[in-house]
Amino acid sequence: MKQEQTAIHPTRSENYPQWYQEVIKASDMAEISPVRGCMVIKPWGYALWENIVRILDGMFKETGVKNAYFPLFIPISFLEKEAEHVEGFAKECAVVTHHKLEKGETGGLVPAGKLTEPLIVRPTSETIIGDAFSRWIKSYRDLPVLINQWANVVRWEMRTRIFLRTSEFLWQEGHTVHATSQEAMERTLMMLDLYKRMAEEYLAMPVLTGEKTPSERFPGAETTTCIEAMMQDRKALQAGTSHFLGQNFAMASGIRFQTAEETEEYGWTTSWGVSTRLIGGLIMIHGDDNGIILPPRVAPAQVVLLPILRPGRAQQTVMDYTHELAARLRQVSYHGNPVRVEIDDRDIGGARNWDWIKKGIPVYVEIGPKDMEKDSVFLGRRDQDYKKRFSMSRDRFVNEIGMILDDIQKSLFHRALSFRKEHTREIDDIDSFNAFFTPKDSEQPEIHGGFALSHWCGSPDCEQRIKERLNVTIRCIPFDGSPEAGACIECGKPSVKRVVFAKAY
Amino acid sequence: MKQEQTAIHPTRSENYPQWYQEVIKASDMAEISPVRGCMVIKPWGYALWENIVRILDGMFKETGVKNAYFPLFIPISFLEKEAEHVEGFAKECAVVTHHKLEKGETGGLVPAGKLTEPLIVRPTSETIIGDAFSRWIKSYRDLPVLINQWANVVRWEMRTRIFLRTSEFLWQEGHTVHATSQEAMERTLMMLDLYKRMAEEYLAMPVLTGEKTPSERFPGAETTTCIEAMMQDRKALQAGTSHFLGQNFAMASGIRFQTAEETEEYGWTTSWGVSTRLIGGLIMIHGDDNGIILPPRVAPAQVVLLPILRPGRAQQTVMDYTHELAARLRQVSYHGNPVRVEIDDRDIGGARNWDWIKKGIPVYVEIGPKDMEKDSVFLGRRDQDYKKRFSMSRDRFVNEIGMILDDIQKSLFHRALSFRKEHTREIDDIDSFNAFFTPKDSEQPEIHGGFALSHWCGSPDCEQRIKERLNVTIRCIPFDGSPEAGACIECGKPSVKRVVFAKAY
Repeated sequence: MKQEQTAIHPTRSENYPQWYQEVIKASDMAEISPVRGCMVIKPWGYALWENIVRILDGMFKETGVKNAYFPLFIPISFLEKEAEHVEGFAKECAVVTHHKLEKGETGGLVPAGKLTEPLIVRPTSETIIGDAFSRWIKSYRDLPVLINQWANVVRWEMRTRIFLRTSEFLWQEGHTVHATSQEAMERTLMMLDLYKRMAEEYLAMPVLTGEKTPSERFPGAETTTCIEAMMQDRKALQAGTSHFLGQNFAMASGIRFQTAEETEEYGWTTSWGVSTRLIGGLIMIHGDDNGIILPPRVAPAQVVLLPILRPGRAQQTVMDYTHELAARLRQVSYHGNPVRVEIDDRDIGGARNWDWIKKGIPVYVEIGPKDMEKDSVFLGRRDQDYKKRFSMSRDRFVNEIGMILDDIQKSLFHRALSFRKEHTREIDDIDSFNAFFTPKDSEQPEIHGGFALSHWCGSPDCEQRIKERLNVTIRCIPFDGSPEAGACIECGKPSVKRVVFAKAY
Repeated sequence: MKQEQTAIHPTRSENYPQWYQEVIKASDMAEISPVRGCMVIKPWGYALWENIVRILDGMFKETGVKNAYFPLFIPISFLEKEAEHVEGFAKECAVVTHHKLEKGETGGLVPAGKLTEPLIVRPTSETIIGDAFSRWIKSYRDLPVLINQWANVVRWEMRTRIFLRTSEFLWQEGHTVHATSQEAMERTLMMLDLYKRMAEEYLAMPVLTGEKTPSERFPGAETTTCIEAMMQDRKALQAGTSHFLGQNFAMASGIRFQTAEETEEYGWTTSWGVSTRLIGGLIMIHGDDNGIILPPRVAPAQVVLLPILRPGRAQQTVMDYTHELAARLRQVSYHGNPVRVEIDDRDIGGARNWDWIKKGIPVYVEIGPKDMEKDSVFLGRRDQDYKKRFSMSRDRFVNEIGMILDDIQKSLFHRALSFRKEHTREIDDIDSFNAFFTPKDSEQPEIHGGFALSHWCGSPDCEQRIKERLNVTIRCIPFDGSPEAGACIECGKPSVKRVVFAKAY
C-alpha cells in the first residue's frame, strides 16, 4: 500500500459520516449487531472501555463513592413517579410484557405468561435506585450516600450510530443523596470536574464545561452540567453530564431523613454519567484518514513489535530479540502501569503494519536483522506521518518510551485544542451566525460551522427558533465566560453572557 | 450483647433457610428489590463481587481470553436455531414486545410500538455470540477464538432466593471456538480447573469436579462439567459449569472455517460460566450463627480498626495511633495487593463490633488507651470464637498480618473440607440410601443427608426414579473416582463407577 493512498475510504473530507463507520470497521473495535440498534463491542474496543472504566472507577472511589448494583427492570409505576422524567423516557423504552415463550398456532414461539405490570428495561436508574435509598436512609447520620453503578442501559433510539447513539450502551451512573442543597451542588460540580479530567488528561479530548439550558436538561433535573467536545466535523459531542436533581427525585421516591434537630426533610440528590459514547468521541476527535489514533494513556496496547521474519534468515534470533525487547518495555512503568506491549508475528506482509495503524496503536516498531545488527529499532508514531518513521538505538528507545508516549498524548490534546480554537468564533450579528451554520457550496455539507460564542437573552423561544432554522442548539452556558454586555443573537434583547451554539451529535 | 446469644436469629440449626435470609440482611450485602425476583447488591456485597471479578478476569486473560460485549436482546429466531437450547430456556425468559409507552384509556401508561419480532432478554448468549462468530471466523488461521463477556442475564425463575436463584444475576460467560474436538475439550477442562482454583484458593470452598449426566446437561451441550460444593445444610451447590458444545451451536449459527487443506468444517465450541451465585455459596459454606465469615483473599476489607474513643480521654491520640497503624498495614503486601483496612470510628457502642462480625470481616482490632500504653492491639479473628480475642504487640501484628490472614483462609477451607468429608458416605444398599436422604424426626428437616457416593448403572430411568422419590439428583460423575465394580443403587445392574448423589440448590 502506497503512502499517498489512505487506508480509510472515504476520507474525512470526502464523507465524514461514512468515514466514521469505515474507521470503526477497519480498527476492529465494534460492529453493528443483527439486533436493531445494538452493537457488538469487539476485544480491541472493549479493552479500551476497560481502561476507561478502571481509571474512572479509581477516581470515583477516591472521592468516597462505592459501587453497587440495582435491577435491570423498572416497574412502570416507578417511572411515573416523576412527571418530567417519565415524559423524557416513555417514548423510547424497551417494554417487557411476558415471562415465557410458548408454541403458537403456526408452530413458532410466541410470548406467553403476561405480566400484571409491564416492566421497562432501565434507560437510567434514578427511580429504582431512589426506591432503595428511601429504605436505606433514615437519619442525617446515614448521609451522604455516594453510590455508583456500572451497567447496561437501553433507550430505543430511532436513528442509531455505533458508540454515539445505540439502543443499548454501557455506562456508569452515579447517584448521591445529601443533607443540604449546597453539598449536593458541590458533588454535582466535583463529578463534572472529574469527567473533565478524564476527558482531557486521559482521552486527550479538550472539553468545555458549563450548564445546560432548561430545554436541554436531564428530565427531572434542576440543573444539568456537561462536558462538550468538538469533533473534526466541528459538531459538538456531549461527552458526560452531571445533574443536580434538587429534591425532585427525593420527593418522588420518598427519600426522607431525620435531621440533627429531629425534623424530617427530603434529601438532595445528584446523578452523573458517562458511557461508551466516549469511545465514539475519541475516534471522531483523533482519527485520521488512516484509521483511529489512540491516546497512549487509554490505549489497550501502547507499543506493537513487528518482527520481520524473512525465510532463510535467522528467524529465531529476531524473535528472541523481539521478546527480550518486549520484556524490557514491560518493566517500564508508565503512569504507574507497565507499558502495554503486543508482539505481532503474523506472516501477512505489509498489511500487518497497516492493521496496527488502522487500530490506532500509539507506537509501532519494526525489528529486522538489519536493525538487530545496529542494535536499533525502527519505529513509527501514530500521531505522525508514516513517512517519518525513524531508527533509534534499542536502549534509548527503552529509556525514552515513557517520554515518547507522553509526547504523543500531548500532541493529540494540543492538536484537538487548536482545532477547536480554530473553529470557535465570537459572532454578534445574525447574518454571520446563519452563514456560519450553513454549508457553503464548496464544502462537504457534513463539515462546516463550529462553536459560535454568541449572546442569548435566556428565552426558550429564541433557542427554539434557532434550533428549527439551523438545527443548532445551545451546548452549554460556559462556566468560564465572564459577564459581558451584549445583545441576543436572535432577538437583540440585552444579554450578560455568551453561550456556546453548535450543531451536535 | 452477650456471647451466649447469637447475632443471627434463627440460628442455622433452628431454621437454615431463614438463617440464610437473615445473615444476608445482617451483613448488609444485598436485599430483595421490589422488582420480582431481582436483587439489589449493596456496596459490601458488590465489593466482594468486584474482587471475584478481578481475580477471575486475570486468570482468563492469562490463558489468552479477551473480553467483549454482545447485545442484551436476542431475537426469538436466534433462540430457535438450537432445538434443545430453546426447549431449556423458553419457559423462563423475559420477553420485550414493545418499544415505548403511551397514555392508555384510563390515563396510565401502557405498552405501545409493538415490535415485529419480539426479543428476549439474554438468559445466556450462545446464539447471539455464535452469530457474531459466524461473521468473524473464515479460516483456520482465525482460530481459536477465545472470548469472555461480563454481563447481566435474566431467567424468570418462579422461586427465587437471593444470590442463589434470582431472575436477574451477574455472571461471566466464556465462549470459544476451536478447529478440533480435542482442543475444545481441553479448553472445557482448562476453564473448569480454573474455576476449581478460584473456589478453593480464593473462596476457601472445596469442590468436587466431574461431569453431569445427560439429564443435567446445559441445553444443547454434548458434555457439561461442573464444580460442586457442599453447603452447611449438606445440600450441593453447583458453583460453576464448563460445557463442551461439540458442533451443535456451530451448526446452528453457521460457524464454519476453511481448513489448511482447503476443506470447509464447522467449528467446535465451548462455553463456561460462574455467577453471583458464588456469593450465596460463600455465605452458606462459611457463615455461622453470628453472620458471614469472609475468606481474606476475597474480603472487601480484611482488617477493621475500631478505636475506642471515650469522652474525657485523649481521643485524638487514639485516632492518630489508629491511622498510623492503618497506614503501616496498608504497606504490607498480601498476595500482591496491599492489605485492605477500614477504620470505623462511629460512636455506637458494642453494636460496632457486632456490625463487623456480622459482615464477616476476617480480623477486627480494638484500639483503646490501655492498648496504646502497652503498644499493643486487641484483636479477634472471625474464624474463631469471640471470647478468644487476644492482645498482641503492634509491631508483631503488622509483621504477622499476612500469616494471620493466610491462617484464617486455610482454617476456613479445612473446616469446610472436614464438613464435606464428615457428610460424604459410600452407600451400597437402597435402604441406607433412602434413610440417608430422609430427615429423622429429631432433625431439622432442612438439614440432613449429604453426598452419597453410590453406584449407578447409567440409566436415566433410575436417575429419574430417585429424583422423584427423594428429590435427590446426581450432582456429577466425579473425575477422580477410580473404576470399581458395583451394582446400581436403584436397579442393581452392574456399574463401574460411583457417582455423587445429593439434594441440591
